[in-house]
Order: sequence, then structure tokens, then C-alpha cells
Amino acid sequence: MSDGAPIDDLMFCIEELRSLDDDTLTASDVDHDTTRAVLEACARFATEELETLDADGDRLGAQWRDGSVRMPPGFRDAYRRYVDAGWQGLQHPAVYGGQALPQTTAAACAEIINAANLGFALCPLLTDGAIEALLTAGSAAQCRLYVPRLVSGEWTGTMNLTEPQAGSDLALLKARAELQADGSYRLFGQKIFITYGDHDLTDNIIHLVLARTADAPPGVRGISLFVVPKFLVDDQGRIGARNDVRCVSIEHKLGIHASPTATLAFGEGEGEGQGGRGAVAYLLGAEHEGLQAMFVMMNLARFRVGVQGIGVAQRAYRKAARYARERVQSRPVDGRRPNAVAIVEHPDVRRMLMTMRAHIEATRALAIHAASLADAAEVGLDPDGEARALYEFLVPLLKGYATEMCVDVTSLGIQIHGGMGFIEETGAAQHYRDARILPIYEGTTAIQANDLIGRKLLRDGGHIARRMAARIERVEHGLAAAGGIDHAAIRAPLRRLRLAFLDAVEFMLGRQHDNVNAIYAAAVPFLQMAARLVAGGLLARCALAATRRAGDGGDTDFLDAKRITARFYAEHIVAPAVGLRDVIIYGGNSALALAAGAF
Amino acid sequence: MSDGAPIDDLMFCIEELRSLDDDTLTASDVDHDTTRAVLEACARFATEELETLDADGDRLGAQWRDGSVRMPPGFRDAYRRYVDAGWQGLQHPAVYGGQALPQTTAAACAEIINAANLGFALCPLLTDGAIEALLTAGSAAQCRLYVPRLVSGEWTGTMNLTEPQAGSDLALLKARAELQADGSYRLFGQKIFITYGDHDLTDNIIHLVLARTADAPPGVRGISLFVVPKFLVDDQGRIGARNDVRCVSIEHKLGIHASPTATLAFGEGEGEGQGGRGAVAYLLGAEHEGLQAMFVMMNLARFRVGVQGIGVAQRAYRKAARYARERVQSRPVDGRRPNAVAIVEHPDVRRMLMTMRAHIEATRALAIHAASLADAAEVGLDPDGEARALYEFLVPLLKGYATEMCVDVTSLGIQIHGGMGFIEETGAAQHYRDARILPIYEGTTAIQANDLIGRKLLRDGGHIARRMAARIERVEHGLAAAGGIDHAAIRAPLRRLRLAFLDAVEFMLGRQHDNVNAIYAAAVPFLQMAARLVAGGLLARCALAATRRAGDGGDTDFLDAKRITARFYAEHIVAPAVGLRDVIIYGGNSALALAAGAF
Repeated sequence: MSDGAPIDDLMFCIEELRSLDDDTLTASDVDHDTTRAVLEACARFATEELETLDADGDRLGAQWRDGSVRMPPGFRDAYRRYVDAGWQGLQHPAVYGGQALPQTTAAACAEIINAANLGFALCPLLTDGAIEALLTAGSAAQCRLYVPRLVSGEWTGTMNLTEPQAGSDLALLKARAELQADGSYRLFGQKIFITYGDHDLTDNIIHLVLARTADAPPGVRGISLFVVPKFLVDDQGRIGARNDVRCVSIEHKLGIHASPTATLAFGEGEGEGQGGRGAVAYLLGAEHEGLQAMFVMMNLARFRVGVQGIGVAQRAYRKAARYARERVQSRPVDGRRPNAVAIVEHPDVRRMLMTMRAHIEATRALAIHAASLADAAEVGLDPDGEARALYEFLVPLLKGYATEMCVDVTSLGIQIHGGMGFIEETGAAQHYRDARILPIYEGTTAIQANDLIGRKLLRDGGHIARRMAARIERVEHGLAAAGGIDHAAIRAPLRRLRLAFLDAVEFMLGRQHDNVNAIYAAAVPFLQMAARLVAGGLLARCALAATRRAGDGGDTDFLDAKRITARFYAEHIVAPAVGLRDVIIYGGNSALALAAGAF
Repeated sequence: MSDGAPIDDLMFCIEELRSLDDDTLTASDVDHDTTRAVLEACARFATEELETLDADGDRLGAQWRDGSVRMPPGFRDAYRRYVDAGWQGLQHPAVYGGQALPQTTAAACAEIINAANLGFALCPLLTDGAIEALLTAGSAAQCRLYVPRLVSGEWTGTMNLTEPQAGSDLALLKARAELQADGSYRLFGQKIFITYGDHDLTDNIIHLVLARTADAPPGVRGISLFVVPKFLVDDQGRIGARNDVRCVSIEHKLGIHASPTATLAFGEGEGEGQGGRGAVAYLLGAEHEGLQAMFVMMNLARFRVGVQGIGVAQRAYRKAARYARERVQSRPVDGRRPNAVAIVEHPDVRRMLMTMRAHIEATRALAIHAASLADAAEVGLDPDGEARALYEFLVPLLKGYATEMCVDVTSLGIQIHGGMGFIEETGAAQHYRDARILPIYEGTTAIQANDLIGRKLLRDGGHIARRMAARIERVEHGLAAAGGIDHAAIRAPLRRLRLAFLDAVEFMLGRQHDNVNAIYAAAVPFLQMAARLVAGGLLARCALAATRRAGDGGDTDFLDAKRITARFYAEHIVAPAVGLRDVIIYGGNSALALAAGAF
């Protein structure tokens, strides 16, 4: 793998994992040459325009002053070039000015962009989410007004969920919206942790805000979704008066310093103490049904945050690999040379690099495969809904696994640098700091795991989980049929993990009524086990494809590395995950036995 | 466990683990009431004088200007009170003004001090190391001159090993020392990453520096150790002229901002380009034998860095537990209450807190037990040398395990805080940043693992490793004899891990000649497995002791928690570690198969 973007591996995944393993389901309109050209253009842009700004963005950060945010040097120009080149519209409908490329292509580009500059990439991600929510819930007029300007990047979008007392628990939110005579609303309240809640990249920002209308029922059933533009616009999209939404501060964070994390005050602009007239707000979708639309947005965002994990991990891997090839230190342990060698020659450095690489290739396979299922469902190649259901099963796996692994992989990136890794100027530490938000935002790992258990596993009685396991079993048959040492070494742990997973599924289903606490205490280990199983199965498919391609005269170095990495993954990551079976089945009692006051 | 220092648990470890499990070996001069009084005084000092400075120390950091370092506000006063109260002399010989307390007590106090303020605690740690090296290698005159002033804290000490091209590989170091007519040396060279290499806490700093004499053999056999005072002193200890050692910069680091990490230039004070007259240096111990003395210092430092991991993890745990008890969010998953509850009630938060707690108690048991072995050896209760050998086996286990777990535990600390954890003002992020140096300095985890394999496992043909396993087996018999569900739940995984460990030992011994690379590729997994086995065995002893004490009418809440935590550790940490057996035995090929150029 070179120092550039992993285009060969992305293309390999796109070509080989764009279907269920039995090839019954394939999105048809794939032109691999076009896809590769898009990825190459994306990589050029990311390297030249975004990666160059990343360290300064971290060092200088977004700056708040007098209610406005100023982005770090270079971000305005880079954003302009980003939208001028059409990157914002990549996967959005052509009717709104987008390029309508598949989710697989969009996911691959997102990995590349996030690797180059996570702080920058959050801005287009939030805009993508706002577009999805508008397309799902907006009226024709709302779509016409906002979507083209978001697709073009003329304006950006935000998601306003969190309040100080309402983080993971949206039932607790208090922001309120008052109906006006003209059918619009006035919105009051404070929202925190709003990514790109203010900035100087565009002339307007379209805030999507969750709030309660008068007499709304309590809890999540009483929540509605509103559009609140920073500047009011007429129905031609011309910008008018400033709306009553102010950025009162931004956070001082561990990482992603370039990305402004805003506290937004709605309706506090006038009338000190009592709040102002309220921010002008427009209902998006039906009253009290705001959460459904927000979930559409969140589902995409969760998938994309998983992809962020892959991108940041890939960046950390590249940096560590380069250092390991260049840093000379200590003689080889096997004495084959008398002098100090590059540390990439030392077995434990090799093990760390392989661990990073294997996790990255595994989660990349998971992301691209999941995106291909979404694509198949989108174009109508999913008559029984299985591709959609499997995609929804995979979203929490990807989000939970890829973000947690990113924390671990960026930590290994520091470790490979030794003492230099702890020095900020080296750059490895930034990735470690940036990565730490990923398992938190868009729903913590526990929230993903609860979603997996509650909505994806128990609700259908384990149906889709067992279907998934059956697919892995077919991959095992393929490995047996192909023969060879590598395939056998992959098959054995994969089979053990599949059987362990099925035991865990039965445990979850069996105890859902009499010991729900034990199930949820095991939810995160279950997610991590399931994710490694699916990713291990996909890497096994990659190994089989690599063997096939090598037989057809493909690039031997690349294909050998794919097979070896898949074997490493099976031996070092799949095999130990089998031990999670007993943690899941037997670990609940000791996890829950202490009284709350004992902590 | 309350919000204060974990004195009850430290005392429990000191009382119950101060021997090998068969009670044949016990340091005799233990007065538990005195020990507890020392720990309580230490905790008061740490809370009142050190923890209060920690956040500002991180925010403001040590500052370099014109060759000198200024410590953050409050550090000078705190240091003064620290040494005035005699804490610097805790474990040092009474003849030099120390209090000659055992290593167990010193380790317990070190945990408390490091938990309060890691950046501060590094200063006394380095002084302790310098004292050890002087006592080991110094002449009577050198000990008389320097040791009392280091024990009192009037001066501090440093370790100067690393150079830009020589980090883990001391064979590459270039600093040179020229013999003078009077028997002293002049030292030239640059040293980097020197902890507390300059500061304004004391009037003098005693640098211990590795360098080569003229015509020294190449590699590590040609290295000598020198004393280089910042200010020259006469034989009465009166401070004279400034020596030619300058602090040319300090590092901008990910964490431990209060601890100045200096680049020191020796012999560059005059004569631009060619260097100056050299820094006045005095040989410590025999020429060319510098590394042996430095290893004494490093062994203590490695043990203590392991203890730092425990301390920082304990601090992160306390902070997370407090937040979890106070933060109200979401209804219980079992529906037992209709409203949102404190997040400590949620199963996954509970699992995370238990994971933190179990790792901390396990590594604390490991540290205190190891210190008690060193104490036993020190007072002559180790006629066959087994306590000393076991201690030396445990040092890399503790350093490797406790520092890596500290990274994971501080990461969980952030996760429990959710979005607030990513905000610097919350404080959880500081521990995460600080923790990241621990698996690097004083020898990376791989260096610890190589030491474990090369010097501790293979050199004695697996003797001490098998003795250790035999002790665990006796603990298993004790668990079986005691009966009860908790003991059985602890015993089963412990037994499986012991057998897996013995397989791994045979693998290491069997392949040491024909596949040394595969052994070293498995070194870190082997270390992590061995550490969990020993720690699991010690927590099993704690569980048995808790049962016994409860029968004797002890504090039921505390003792129940000890037993439950030991069971959690067995089920959640010991059990999955069994999977490392196959990683160790089968994982070498895939870890090493790729060409170096493929990364």
C-alpha cells in the first residue's frame, strides 16, 4: 500500500463486495472505470487541498468572537474549491443538481476526504444529513427552496438535537416552538454540541432543529422537526434578515479543533431575561414526527461516522508505516544483520502495522459492502427487503466497530512512533485526539449496541442475524473448496466465531424477557463480536477473490497482501473474539452485581 | 469505593498479598497501622496540594525561556511542601536521611501521588531513580555528596539516555566524555526527552548521563555513566559555577504538560560550531559499565511507571464514577422505573465502570505483590532467590499491562462522560492524553515484552514461569476447597488461562532457535496473557481473603465488592485472554509474511 489514498483496495472492495455472497443481488449500473476516475480525482483534491490544511486547522482551530465563528486559514478557499468541483453533490439526486452516484462511491470518497481532514469533512457530512432529512420529510416547496443550495454547497446544514440535559436521551429535550398566525413557528431554547453551528464558509446555514410544539405529549412522541435558517430567505432563496439564532460559544475540545462545535441560542436575541421574539422556524414533516425524519439523517450520519473511523485510521496507518520504514533502530532479533535496521523489520512493529492494516481493511470491506446493499435496495434490486434489512443491521456494527477500532489504531500509530509519537509536531497525536469523538457522537457505542439488540436482533426474532450467519457459512464452504493453507487458516477461526455468535444470538433471544439487564450488559461485546464475524467473512471473500484474480494473472503483490491480511485478521482478531461468547453468556451477573452506590 | 484515594484497597493488598501464596515468605517488619497512617497522610497531601494544581498544570504547562524552564503556578510551593514533609525520602535509607519504608508502602504512596498529579510526580520519580543509581554504582564520596541532598529533595535528579538517533537502541548513542588530568571528564553531546531536565523547583539538578569514553568499544558495551551537576559543587555540597549543560528547548507534548521534557546540550556553551569546553562530568561506577547501573535505575522506574498507570486509571475511574452517579439520562432498560435515571443504572455504563475497576484492582494487586517480593528479597527473606527472580519477571508484566490498560481505562473514562468527555474543561481528556506516554517511556511495551521473553523466560528455560503457574494452580485448589458460586466462576477461566499460558511457554521455548521472529512477534500478546494470569491469580487470592474476612465479621460491602470484582475480572478479562494462546502459537506467520516494502 503506497502513501497515497487506498484506491486499489477501495476498488477491490467495490468490485468484489458489491453483492451478497451468492451473487443473487447486484446493483447493475456499475462502471468501474468511472468509479476509479472519481476516486482518483477525490484523492488528488484531498491530498492537495485538504490534507495540507489539517495540521494548522488543529493547531489554530476555529475561533469564536462576538457571536461569529471564523474558520482556520485556508478553509474558506478549500471549501469554495470543494463545492465548485461538485463534491458536495456526489450522491444527491440529479434533479437537485447532484451527480446521483451510488452510496458505494460516496462512501469511498468520504473515507478519502475524512482521512485528509476530519475537521473539514464534518461540514459536508452535516450538509448531506440535512439534505437527506429534507428529501425525506420536506414539502415540495421546502425541497425546492433548500435542497439545490445545499447540494451545490452554497449553504450548509446542521443537526440540532442535543441540549445540556438531553444528550443520548431525546425524551428530555425542552426546546419549544410556538405556532404563529402565518403557519410558521417561533422557536426558543438552547442547543449544544452543534457541529458547524456557525462558520464563515457560506452566506447562510440551514439549521434542522428538534423542538416541542405547545401541548405536545411528553417524551420522544412529542418532538417535531423544524427548519431554522440563520438568515431568513424569501421563496426565491434571496437572503433577508438575520434570524434570532446566535452562536453563544464554541467548545474547547480534545480534537477536531477546526470543526466549530457550537452552542446555539434560539429566541434570546431581544428582551433580556425573558428571551426574544423567537427564531423563525418552519415545521419539517408532520408535527410530533420529528424523530422519524431525524433518524433518516442519523442513519446516514452513523454510517458516515463509521467511515470517518476508517479514514482517520488509514491516515494514522500511512504515517506510522512511513515512519517505520524510515526510522533505523536496533539490530534484527534473528541476528541476520549486524547493524541497526529500519524498525519495520522488528516483529512487534510488524504486528502493530498488520493489526492496523487488518482492522482498516476489515472495516472498509464492511462499509463498502453495507453501502452496496443500500444501493441495491435503492435501485429496486431488493424485492424481499433483505438487502435493506441487512444494511440496517450493519450500520450499528460499522459505527460501533470502526470508531472504537479507530481509537485503538491511532493509539498504535503513536506507539510505533515511540517517544516522537507523543510530540505534537509529529502529527500522530492529532489523529489520536481527533479519533476519540468518533465512538461518542451520532450515538455512543452503547447506543449503537442497544439499537442493534433492540431494533435489529430481537425485533425480527433473530431472522436477519441467522441469515447473515448462513452467508458466512457459505463463505466457509468456499474456503474449503478453494483449498490451500491460507484459506484453511481463515476458515477455522471464522467457523468458530460463527458458532459462538449463534450461541450468543440464542442467549439474547432466550433471556429477553427474564433478564433484560444481562442482555444489555452484553450488548457492546455482542456488537464487537458480530462486527468481527461479518468483517471476517467479508475479508474471507476478499481472500477468495484474490486467489481467483491471481490465477487470472492479476497484480500478485496486491493480491498476496489481501490474502495475507485476511489470514492475519482471522488469526489475530477473529480467533480471540470467540472468547466474547462466554463474556456475553456468563458475564452479566458480575457486571451488574454491585450496588450503584459502590462505584 | 469513595471519591478519595483507594486506601482500603491498598491496605487490603498490602495485608493479603505480602507473601507468596503458600505463606513461606513474608517480610516481617510490617506494622499495618503505621502503613495506613502513612497512606492517609499521603492522600491528604495529594488531594490538598497536588490534585488542585493538576488542571492548571495541564493548561498552562511548563514554560521555556532563554534556556530556563519555569514551572506552572503553584508547583514551586507544592514541591517545597512535598520535600519539607519528607515524602521524597520515603523508601530511601535512613543513613542518608530517608525513612526506609518498604517498597510496598512506597508503591502505594506513588499510586496516590501519581493519581493526583502525574506531571508533578515525575520529578520525585526521577530523583528516586538517580538515588538508586548512585547507591548502586557511586563511590562512598559520591553517595555522601549527592544522596542526602536528593533524599531531602534539596536537589533533583534526571536520567539522560535518549539521543535523536538513539531511543530504544542505546547502542547507537554518540555522546562522548573526555578524560581530564584531574580524573574528571568533559562531556559533549545532545540528549532529548529528558524529564525535568530543567526547572525552577530547586537550586541544583544532578544529571546522570550515558556517554562513551575515548576508544570505548562500539555498541552497548562501550557506554559509561556520568554525574553532571547543573551547577558544580565543592565537596561540601556548596554550589559553585554553572556547568556547561543547557536546556535548549522543551517539547510540545500530547500530555503531561506540567512536566518539562527537555533537550539538553552538553559542552556547547562556548566555541560555536566546535562545541565548548565540555560539561564537567564524573564517572559513576566503572568505565564501560554504565548500562548496568542505568538498568538498576530503569528497573525501579519501569515498576513505578506501571504504578503511574494504576494511579492515572484510578483518577479517571473516580471521575467517571462520580459523573455516572450524577448524570441523569434515559429510562432503565428493564422498565422498572418510568423516568430517566442516573446513568450508573444503565448496564453498559456499569460494564464500563466494572472494566475500569477490575483492571485497576488487578494491576494494583500485581504492583503491591511485586513490591512485597522486592521487600522480602531486600530484608533477606529470599534465601533461594526466588522472590527476586519472580519480582524481575513481574516488572515487565506490570509495566506493559498497567500502562496499556491505563490508555484503555482513561478512554473508557471519556466514553462514560459522553460528549462532555471530549470537552477539555471536563478533565477526563487530560487523563487520556497524559496516559498515552506511559506505554512508551522507560521502554515501550515491546521492549518490556522482549525483556520478558529474552531475559526472564528463555534464559532460565521457563523455570520461574512454571513456578509462577504452579502457584496459580494452588490458588485454584484454594478456590475449589472454599466452594461457592463466585469462587467456581473465578476458578474455571483461571485454570483455562493457566493451561493456555503453559502451552505458550512451551511454544516460546521450543521455537527459540528455529523461529525467533515468530517468538518476538508473539512477545506482546504473551506479556498481556501472562500479566492477566498473574493478576487474575492475585485477585482470586483477594476473593478468598474477602470470603475469609467476611466470615470473621469484616466490612461486608467492601469484601463483597472485592469478590464480585474478582469474578468480573475472571469472566470479562481472564476468560477472553485464553484466546491469546492461538494468536501466540499460530499468529507469527501472517504477522511477518508481508514484505517490508508492502507497508
